[in-house]
Amino acid sequence: MAPMAMTPESSGTTTPTTTASKLTEAGMKHASPTANGHASKLSPLDASLMTVELSKAPRSVPAPDSEETKAQKTCTDHMATARWTQEHGWEAPQLRPYGPLEIMPTASVLHYAVECFEGLKLYRGYDGKLRLFRVSRNCERMRRSAARIALPDFEPKELERMIVALCARDGAKWLPKERAGGFLYIRPTMIATDPALGVQRPREALLYVILACFPDMSKSLATPAPPAMQGQANGASNNSGLRLLASKEDTIRAWPGGFGYAKVGANYGPTLVAQGEAKARGFDQVLWLFDKEAYVTEAGASNFFVVMREPTSNKLQLITAPLEERIILEGITRASIIELVKERLSGTHSDLEAVEMVERRFTMSEVIDAAKDGRLVEAFAAGTAFFVAPVSLIHFRDKDLDVPMDGDSGKYARLIKKWLVDIMYGNVSHEWGVVVPEQQ
Amino acid sequence: MAPMAMTPESSGTTTPTTTASKLTEAGMKHASPTANGHASKLSPLDASLMTVELSKAPRSVPAPDSEETKAQKTCTDHMATARWTQEHGWEAPQLRPYGPLEIMPTASVLHYAVECFEGLKLYRGYDGKLRLFRVSRNCERMRRSAARIALPDFEPKELERMIVALCARDGAKWLPKERAGGFLYIRPTMIATDPALGVQRPREALLYVILACFPDMSKSLATPAPPAMQGQANGASNNSGLRLLASKEDTIRAWPGGFGYAKVGANYGPTLVAQGEAKARGFDQVLWLFDKEAYVTEAGASNFFVVMREPTSNKLQLITAPLEERIILEGITRASIIELVKERLSGTHSDLEAVEMVERRFTMSEVIDAAKDGRLVEAFAAGTAFFVAPVSLIHFRDKDLDVPMDGDSGKYARLIKKWLVDIMYGNVSHEWGVVVPEQQ
Repeated sequence: MAPMAMTPESSGTTTPTTTASKLTEAGMKHASPTANGHASKLSPLDASLMTVELSKAPRSVPAPDSEETKAQKTCTDHMATARWTQEHGWEAPQLRPYGPLEIMPTASVLHYAVECFEGLKLYRGYDGKLRLFRVSRNCERMRRSAARIALPDFEPKELERMIVALCARDGAKWLPKERAGGFLYIRPTMIATDPALGVQRPREALLYVILACFPDMSKSLATPAPPAMQGQANGASNNSGLRLLASKEDTIRAWPGGFGYAKVGANYGPTLVAQGEAKARGFDQVLWLFDKEAYVTEAGASNFFVVMREPTSNKLQLITAPLEERIILEGITRASIIELVKERLSGTHSDLEAVEMVERRFTMSEVIDAAKDGRLVEAFAAGTAFFVAPVSLIHFRDKDLDVPMDGDSGKYARLIKKWLVDIMYGNVSHEWGVVVPEQQ
Repeated sequence: MAPMAMTPESSGTTTPTTTASKLTEAGMKHASPTANGHASKLSPLDASLMTVELSKAPRSVPAPDSEETKAQKTCTDHMATARWTQEHGWEAPQLRPYGPLEIMPTASVLHYAVECFEGLKLYRGYDGKLRLFRVSRNCERMRRSAARIALPDFEPKELERMIVALCARDGAKWLPKERAGGFLYIRPTMIATDPALGVQRPREALLYVILACFPDMSKSLATPAPPAMQGQANGASNNSGLRLLASKEDTIRAWPGGFGYAKVGANYGPTLVAQGEAKARGFDQVLWLFDKEAYVTEAGASNFFVVMREPTSNKLQLITAPLEERIILEGITRASIIELVKERLSGTHSDLEAVEMVERRFTMSEVIDAAKDGRLVEAFAAGTAFFVAPVSLIHFRDKDLDVPMDGDSGKYARLIKKWLVDIMYGNVSHEWGVVVPEQQ
């Protein structure tokens, strides 16, 4: 077979990886111009073409604390979808009634984990408005995840428009104004629906966005919340901080040269056994370590932060694992915390000492030494699902390491959380909070 | 939350990992006896309960060389399915018309790659009989894969019975006696259908078995066949041996402490980009290396074998990567080759020199040195999909390494392939060939 470069997607500014799947005649016709350096004829994702079919059987909204909400299975009345084929590119997106997908038993998402997703939230502000938090970042990351798992490219702004359209449609009913401080969980997903069993770049895919009801955490947002989902049994959390079980050397979540940075399904399913073991032993999550040096990488599916006093300079540092090796998720909450801390905590903040923000490899030994010397100040996990969750204990090599708390949270975690809550729920005006216009 | 051990599956002899997902009341009722050390009330997988609903719209069988067959999308009239829930265990299996699955957009298989599968073939023997090859091995491996990805346990024999029932039902029509030397591809699959978005052990799953039409390789089975599927563009293969592109240091397939040994979706999707690049550059597959030492692990999704003369003893060795690190798939073709070679080639076989079968780590440097010294005899990939596929070239660090061939195959690959063909297609009677009774 002769090498052949082609670009099945036309919307992107990055060049998708070439595919050498055998082309249909239609695919050849479209692909050839690109191979010749001309613009592709394939249709780009275009949210302005979205068709709307409203649900004829709208459902009732479960109460925030109901069993139905806690079950995390209820979605809103509609979903936004867009189909892609290698022959034609993206079809017109649809806003349509939420319901089951018809997927052939041969679809590659069911066999080869050709799937990626995002997780973000729609917030009902204390000012009555609906907001998204840095949604463009999620859409850009979704594009990078899609590229890593051989799913089609798209213009992130178009996905953002699909998300906004769905939130605008269902927000007023499913997240009413009287639920200020509440949220819906937004899950953009892309799956390979190509019904051919060969292990190859998919020729068909489906992008969809759904809004799910999750337990209302508004009451606990002012103080550290029990992290919802990510395997957290609702209401069963330890309210005085996460208890983490450090992973053993024989269980590794991600590896350099792998895909740990991408939000692809393949990073999650393989962690369920270790996570189940941790829970069975009374811990909330796994603290994922890497290498014999026991580098600290992630907590559950969240990024991990620790506040320690540097042994020689005696200065306070907020430390988190770096992105360079690409074994940890490029968290948007992580990035936001880093930016805020650099901006607001490099000098003294009211009664809190200044901290230096540091992204570097660090080991469990460093954390243990800091604890012994009284230099360990606090630790927390951060992500969309977990939000900012203080850590009270790390179990490592058969020993418990107690992590200091100031009441129900560390002081820095509490302050950072308040900053984020204020942006997400409109207590302050900030460019990261994107207001969604809602249809009544 | 207090630690809680429970066994949601009752059929297994191995103990499934405990789960600490919050239990429904129904789940508690069933799970408690197990937690207390008594037998679980959950139903085991039981193929004898299988219900049968025959297709009212049977389809026509595509010709072996038709475009439809080459597209690898056509399955037979029926499929075998069995649903599992955490509350009740396995429901009665169904043999029912083949068709799309209704899957909720929240199902964890679509987000977290909670899925595993098997690949085997139904062979139409030259003696007119239908056979499976070591099917019990596939069923046992499927159980191990399920355990790794937190899917429910089952008795492998019951899966085997489901496979046999489906083959018996559809074999006579879809693999008729006049197609001696032909095969259908069998794909047992298990997916998590739990429609809750939390990252947790699934509470619902679906096991299913389908039979797919693949290009008829009967003509090429006497001589080296172009490997079908596994990303191979039909008919586009280089008939004079596989051309492999060695992976770079920045791309690895699997790692110690990961899941490379299990047939879970998470091992496949993340390889598609590298595979697509290899094909775009004119290679057939990726040769997956590991570590800076460039240990040779797998070729595409197949095991890799090399015949080299040992430098000091000057004896011939057939070498393949070991299973201990669990970074390569425990191939059934691999195991069968090892057994046959030990049994039949430790002494001289007709005109072929004896070879010592060796499972050990080996590096690209060793292979290159052997080639330089004239000690490299041949290499081949082996797996269900690839079968036994001779390798003619390895591209490693910007250089082509030519691998010797004897015409269209190495001599050892040719002999080993003949041994396997004889068992699969009933030219010889052998315990590995399992005859399937067929319904007319």
